[in-house]
Amino acid sequence: MFKWVAAGLAALFVIVCGPAALAEEGMWTYDDFPAQQVEQRFGVRLDRPWLDHVQAASVRLSSGCSGAVVSAEGLVMTNHHCLVECVRDLSSSASDYVRDGFLTDSRADERKCPTLQAEVLIGIVDVTSQIFAASENKFGDDYVLAREGAMSGAEKSVCAGDPRLRCQVISFFRGGQFKIYKYRRYADVRLVFAPEFTASFFGGDPDNFNFPRFDLDCAFLRLYEDGKPATTPEFLVWSTASPKPGEAVFVSGNPGTTERQLTVSQLESLRDVVIPMTELQRSELRGRLIQFSEQSGEHRRIATDHLFGQENAFKIYYGRQLALVDPAFMAARRKEEADLKARLAADAKLAAQVGDPWTEIEQLQKPYADQYVVWRQLEASSGQGSELFRYARTLVRGALERPKPSAQRLPEFADSRLPLIEKSLFDGHVIDPGLETLYLEFWLSKTREYLGADSPATAMVLGRESPEDLAQRLVAGSRLADPAMRRALWAGGLPAIQTSTDPLIQYVLKTDALSRAARQLWEDDVAGPIERASERISRVRFAFYGRNIYPDATFSLRLSYGAVQGWTYKGDQTGPFTTYAGLYERATGADPFRLAPRWEQARARLDPSTVFNFVTTNDIIGGNSGSPVVNAAGQVIGAAFDGNIHSIAGDFIYDGALNRTVAVSTVSVTEALAKVYGRTALVKELTGK
Amino acid sequence: MFKWVAAGLAALFVIVCGPAALAEEGMWTYDDFPAQQVEQRFGVRLDRPWLDHVQAASVRLSSGCSGAVVSAEGLVMTNHHCLVECVRDLSSSASDYVRDGFLTDSRADERKCPTLQAEVLIGIVDVTSQIFAASENKFGDDYVLAREGAMSGAEKSVCAGDPRLRCQVISFFRGGQFKIYKYRRYADVRLVFAPEFTASFFGGDPDNFNFPRFDLDCAFLRLYEDGKPATTPEFLVWSTASPKPGEAVFVSGNPGTTERQLTVSQLESLRDVVIPMTELQRSELRGRLIQFSEQSGEHRRIATDHLFGQENAFKIYYGRQLALVDPAFMAARRKEEADLKARLAADAKLAAQVGDPWTEIEQLQKPYADQYVVWRQLEASSGQGSELFRYARTLVRGALERPKPSAQRLPEFADSRLPLIEKSLFDGHVIDPGLETLYLEFWLSKTREYLGADSPATAMVLGRESPEDLAQRLVAGSRLADPAMRRALWAGGLPAIQTSTDPLIQYVLKTDALSRAARQLWEDDVAGPIERASERISRVRFAFYGRNIYPDATFSLRLSYGAVQGWTYKGDQTGPFTTYAGLYERATGADPFRLAPRWEQARARLDPSTVFNFVTTNDIIGGNSGSPVVNAAGQVIGAAFDGNIHSIAGDFIYDGALNRTVAVSTVSVTEALAKVYGRTALVKELTGK
Repeated sequence: MFKWVAAGLAALFVIVCGPAALAEEGMWTYDDFPAQQVEQRFGVRLDRPWLDHVQAASVRLSSGCSGAVVSAEGLVMTNHHCLVECVRDLSSSASDYVRDGFLTDSRADERKCPTLQAEVLIGIVDVTSQIFAASENKFGDDYVLAREGAMSGAEKSVCAGDPRLRCQVISFFRGGQFKIYKYRRYADVRLVFAPEFTASFFGGDPDNFNFPRFDLDCAFLRLYEDGKPATTPEFLVWSTASPKPGEAVFVSGNPGTTERQLTVSQLESLRDVVIPMTELQRSELRGRLIQFSEQSGEHRRIATDHLFGQENAFKIYYGRQLALVDPAFMAARRKEEADLKARLAADAKLAAQVGDPWTEIEQLQKPYADQYVVWRQLEASSGQGSELFRYARTLVRGALERPKPSAQRLPEFADSRLPLIEKSLFDGHVIDPGLETLYLEFWLSKTREYLGADSPATAMVLGRESPEDLAQRLVAGSRLADPAMRRALWAGGLPAIQTSTDPLIQYVLKTDALSRAARQLWEDDVAGPIERASERISRVRFAFYGRNIYPDATFSLRLSYGAVQGWTYKGDQTGPFTTYAGLYERATGADPFRLAPRWEQARARLDPSTVFNFVTTNDIIGGNSGSPVVNAAGQVIGAAFDGNIHSIAGDFIYDGALNRTVAVSTVSVTEALAKVYGRTALVKELTGK
Repeated sequence: MFKWVAAGLAALFVIVCGPAALAEEGMWTYDDFPAQQVEQRFGVRLDRPWLDHVQAASVRLSSGCSGAVVSAEGLVMTNHHCLVECVRDLSSSASDYVRDGFLTDSRADERKCPTLQAEVLIGIVDVTSQIFAASENKFGDDYVLAREGAMSGAEKSVCAGDPRLRCQVISFFRGGQFKIYKYRRYADVRLVFAPEFTASFFGGDPDNFNFPRFDLDCAFLRLYEDGKPATTPEFLVWSTASPKPGEAVFVSGNPGTTERQLTVSQLESLRDVVIPMTELQRSELRGRLIQFSEQSGEHRRIATDHLFGQENAFKIYYGRQLALVDPAFMAARRKEEADLKARLAADAKLAAQVGDPWTEIEQLQKPYADQYVVWRQLEASSGQGSELFRYARTLVRGALERPKPSAQRLPEFADSRLPLIEKSLFDGHVIDPGLETLYLEFWLSKTREYLGADSPATAMVLGRESPEDLAQRLVAGSRLADPAMRRALWAGGLPAIQTSTDPLIQYVLKTDALSRAARQLWEDDVAGPIERASERISRVRFAFYGRNIYPDATFSLRLSYGAVQGWTYKGDQTGPFTTYAGLYERATGADPFRLAPRWEQARARLDPSTVFNFVTTNDIIGGNSGSPVVNAAGQVIGAAFDGNIHSIAGDFIYDGALNRTVAVSTVSVTEALAKVYGRTALVKELTGK
């Protein structure tokens, strides 16, 4: 049995590493992958065909996850936790697929995920010079409009109205590069297989971000086009072999965000302003969701994935904050920054061009701290998880924005982005009034608490009502849960919106000017100026580090390299694998260590030595969930679903000695599909047997 | 109308002041009051008879509050929020006195507060040299035992078995002085008058710590002895005059704790370890309580005061943390510390005696950070608000400790302290199983989360159960809610405990060794060594600052001086008063700005210009709630119930320009008693008319 590592929040810690990319650090773009470095390190040569093939089989999901095509008929493997919202949307109080799992016997049983879209990257176009040229010598609003105009124009020109495509300009190196990522989009994505939540998330929040681990965090989708399974000749071969200690592995997926290139003053603002406020609010919301869940079985069913999301995020930010309050971590970042500044100072020409962006950013932290809470409460977190509020805002803003020329709209309403907006507006997401009320009430009460009962903003947001009464009234009276109503309001444009009697539409109509003013102020005085200064820091980095650096994650396709490998912390060794046997040893019968009934029944049929979960040295982060772990032969041997506890501050830092990716092995998935779930057809599709 | 000050959490801020006591700063002991300083400042001479009289009319309440005797028949004024637990204990689902108020027509209607004890300070004895002598040259356990033995011995010798007395050794200047405070105790304290919660706490959490303010946060008790109203010749005359701008006022009460004498490294541990963890846990608990409250009217009734307590504490620690992350605040503290060290360095003799306690304390912050969470979860916060758990632990520990000689027991079980333990064990506090389960589940789940699912401590605390199931089982099966059962177990001693089948008793019997081990480690390795080093810093302070300093608050009687006065912040002036008219203007009809029905009905009868709440420059903190605000003539003109938003970091700092005490005026209380509540007899007892 494994030696357990103390894994509570109190045991979280951070190891400081230096500024240069270390060992397996890096989330590399496919068009700039350090293949030579990898060959030197692992003796494995990833040639262009290998890269092209894996890229073509890599999937981005609109749930903020990754996946891989694993058959010629559009089958996609990802994590269960990437699909849990879909699984819930397909459930009802009568059939709870989150609790019981979702199994299909044939294609006819596969059911469309109401909110999900899948995308496969099919091309990359560098548009840096166009974007820079469009916004040169412009400031404030002009700058933002010119830049947004150039970006949506570029997107439109490359994807040219083909509804099967989606183009997205993505910023790399914090504004140092801009590239169009051209995707084949699949708006019809259907659920094929999902295990029980207790199997996919065995150990629950206590085991989350920990290892040893025993989670079947795997699920399958199928891409459809024209109502039929998509033909996908580019797919990853499914390995039924166990991962081998030390073998080279590659994770292909879409890491969400990292902030490894932030300046010290920006890190300090995260530490002193952003994370404390975010975590305190999240903790209260978590408490409300827990108590809500415990009120009834139906509440538990509805709130499970919401609670998981909050607890997962809570743990991540808790870990990040520990890094930020660690004097050694901050000292290392200060040193790195001083080194870069010193190199710049020695280069008079470049220094004259870029000025002192660090000081500019530092001075911007005062307005940042002052305005963050206003921007957060009135714009960024408005409605705080309420889907109805999101619909109402999209409808109201869409009605106001769409009549304008594309380049002058709020950027999310540019022509090239309308398909995504419409998809998310018309989806068949299931709305629960109880949860909606909880979220709205929470947001309203926190807005009053943080902005003050007597602030003009609170007066506008609340009027003379209490958060409790207002939330109740808005949710009870709204008909926006009906997709047909949303379609009609979208189609009807501003006249339909202005004459709507829906209380949420009326509410957003009344309050949206305030929210937009907060956004404008934030963009003009804080976010925009910081972005412009950050671009210049990127130029300095390029000049001195060249291609030895990778861009911060931006939910765009990346490839990371590493090896199957455990770790040693304070003398305690943790091996690279767990087995089915370990699952049964860890089960107590009490949540969250309770086995699903199918797993209890299957115990005798399973090979206890099957490698279940494993760890690798790959550098990944949230967004990579569901990413295929690929061996040198290009076969998929697992699905990444987590990091170990030492990786939890991965937003800021990677340490090859301790940071680990946690994956579920394909061999265990095959075994479970065959012997726990009896999915013969699915096993055949994956393995040919 | 007043100009409202932005008052949300986002508007909290800290002003830095220097090291010397400023203007009205200070919570002075009665035996060392700076009367000369006050005379110079205000032209008011407080002679010994004045001080003795006010001291004799000042009351300490076991609910952590203060009060004043205001009639010759034992009538005591305090805050409503100091009695809300009593009001709830006297309520039931049929009669909700928290919501509706509690009125009495005669002495016969007055009802005993089940958990409350009142104390009046009748003497002070300096025992510093005895305590120092007993523990000289002792370390570790020996030191602790010797010191505790000396303290409980001193208490016993002064109070000598008189059950009407309570003696308590109180530490001043963080171990620099020890004095016995000798109290006349009143174990029979009865509720006379309480307004509606919406009247006492109008504005709720949003207005808490803010001003302008409109709260009738006042309630009345009566001290009883031998079943009859106590005779109290020393009482404060009730003023029916309005407070005057600029008039000198004195607040006599029991400030709970301040930490103005902590070293910089201790402040850093509060900032990086203690407050973040405490506030995150509190936020989640708050969320659970909010959602619990909203489940039903009965839940709301039960949880109102619990939620108030959590929200009040949340706001306080939020403000404290803002001070601690303010670089200017920390720089000022660093400078103050450096100055003191420099003075010490120049005094070779003293320096040789005290060594370098600052460095010792700094080095102790590492074990502090490592062990804090263990000590917190296993000892300090065990059960986290569960009364049943508290009973069970008291019973188990009492059974184990009482057979030992008094000086060798855990200090809270020393002979001199048993009456208090028994009082709190046998009280008639109302237990709600739903809330009990909520608290226990919360504590168990946080213990697992912070210590880790696989830590030996979690294995001991949870076994193989889930927090939800274990909490449910312990509460559902326990009979400790019945005071008779607790009496029987207390009387039965260890044999009764060991044979008890009560699941909570069994649970504590099983887990208590672990909790005590955590406590022992904390006291031996952290708290004890820090205390010993702190004593030496106190000696340095005494040597250089002498009598110009006051001791940190220790929930012992203090007198602060100041004046009725508003303040100016960023150009916005806030006047010193509010009136009844302002209450009616602020009412919206929605919680927490809803008027109680009696107040709606009484509007026409009330003089709108009546001064309702007012602010003064006195330096107070939590524990001072209910303190009489006394004028130079020794008359009570108000009851202090809060600080303004600028005082929220009062734990660390006082700034005379901005920090204000918030009080409810006696003139408004008289008017309300007469015209809102029709309490003729009570008005007569107070005013003679």
